[in-house]
Amino acid sequence: MQPAATPREVRESIRRGQWVKPTSGLAPAFAQANLVILDRSLAFEFLLFCVRNPKPCPVLEVLEPGGFEPRITAPGADIRTDVPLYRVWKRGELHAETPEISAHWDGDMVSFLLGCSFSFESALLASGIPIRNIEEGRNVSMYITNRPCIPAGRFSAPLVVSMRPIPDDLVVRAVQVTSRYASVHGAPVHIGDGSALGIEDLDSPDFGDPVTIHKGETPVFWACGVTSSLAALSGRPELCITHSPGHMFITDSPNESWAAI
Amino acid sequence: MQPAATPREVRESIRRGQWVKPTSGLAPAFAQANLVILDRSLAFEFLLFCVRNPKPCPVLEVLEPGGFEPRITAPGADIRTDVPLYRVWKRGELHAETPEISAHWDGDMVSFLLGCSFSFESALLASGIPIRNIEEGRNVSMYITNRPCIPAGRFSAPLVVSMRPIPDDLVVRAVQVTSRYASVHGAPVHIGDGSALGIEDLDSPDFGDPVTIHKGETPVFWACGVTSSLAALSGRPELCITHSPGHMFITDSPNESWAAI
Repeated sequence: MQPAATPREVRESIRRGQWVKPTSGLAPAFAQANLVILDRSLAFEFLLFCVRNPKPCPVLEVLEPGGFEPRITAPGADIRTDVPLYRVWKRGELHAETPEISAHWDGDMVSFLLGCSFSFESALLASGIPIRNIEEGRNVSMYITNRPCIPAGRFSAPLVVSMRPIPDDLVVRAVQVTSRYASVHGAPVHIGDGSALGIEDLDSPDFGDPVTIHKGETPVFWACGVTSSLAALSGRPELCITHSPGHMFITDSPNESWAAI
Repeated sequence: MQPAATPREVRESIRRGQWVKPTSGLAPAFAQANLVILDRSLAFEFLLFCVRNPKPCPVLEVLEPGGFEPRITAPGADIRTDVPLYRVWKRGELHAETPEISAHWDGDMVSFLLGCSFSFESALLASGIPIRNIEEGRNVSMYITNRPCIPAGRFSAPLVVSMRPIPDDLVVRAVQVTSRYASVHGAPVHIGDGSALGIEDLDSPDFGDPVTIHKGETPVFWACGVTSSLAALSGRPELCITHSPGHMFITDSPNESWAAI
């Protein structure tokens, strides 16, 4: 992939099956999205869950039932082929992992695109704030917390957070930078001791990889889009399709277009 | 009504039928809300309309089907009795105006509470920015524009805006102050000549009252919650209930809790 590839070029490469890998670092100026696909009969309750829990589940776009083109955030794209890797879930259990879902598609499916913390990572880097998981070439560390989201209908989930160790003298700046991105997770939900969130061991994340925390660094926790996958599966829907972790949908919306101010 | 009455006290007074008047100025530190009530069969499409058009239709809370207590923004309140005056619409036509709607209630109704510009008016005043409609004791001027909202299912509407004349040297400050309130209409949608929005005559608003525009003042336009009523009625639903203009639902959520930063 060319470093300067546009979102459209990246999606075309993915559609042709030439990129079945995580999307971190691709088209870095553009918002990437978590994907959840559910039957229309569940769409109101799931959208309500997202609206009630905007920090972990910020809505970028919701498609009409049966719609597969995200006309607002990625005109011309196809939600069925333009994600590198999907997970197909039946009654809450993993059924398949596949690079395209056309065979599973039907006209009653509603696709939800939800914001991803990649959008504020480039802003943190631009402010001189190091991101350990990028430095170490790992996936960000994610943890299931003891904080329940507000349920909606049959959907519920604990808040899932991502953690980045931040040098002590840059913690305030990290809060300021990410506060601008209220539409894509926004400000941290917690700073410091993970036990306040019920996290026992930072070296054992529930998702992603552990990263090194140096002396003089503070763990900072942000709401994480994985919450939306847990919520979708909590309803044990007959069929649910999500992206595979790290394999996001890349939109044409610049990250900056989601900044509050 | 005592000037320092709490939202709960104001709602109790309204519930007892002692306040059948507009709510402007009541419990001014707390968010007031537009109300739209629709059948659950329309709830996904209408919530999608709001999510796609967050500037005119910022969602404060959506209740479960049949639910009448806004547990998130006003625990203990009753959506059926705590608005001073309601409008009952059948197939898009006004059927009745009434101070309580218990007789119309059924277990399939979904209530939407949407943000109101009263939330940023107190912030404007606190920054020394005069608000003409308050000075003149009138309702704010509102106009139907030539800008379409993004439709969702059977719901569509033109963007409706409210207009406040702002002294030229305070226009930048007005943008800054209201930008903080991204969850309740936020920054202006337009500054200056109303004809860019298709507004022919500022002295003839489509809703509310005209106000005086002095020399040295610029008209500033913000997205307006009346958009949500037009959208709800555009679907010509069998039954739709809204608040009467200016007669809002008063929540327990401080205006400041809706500020982005």
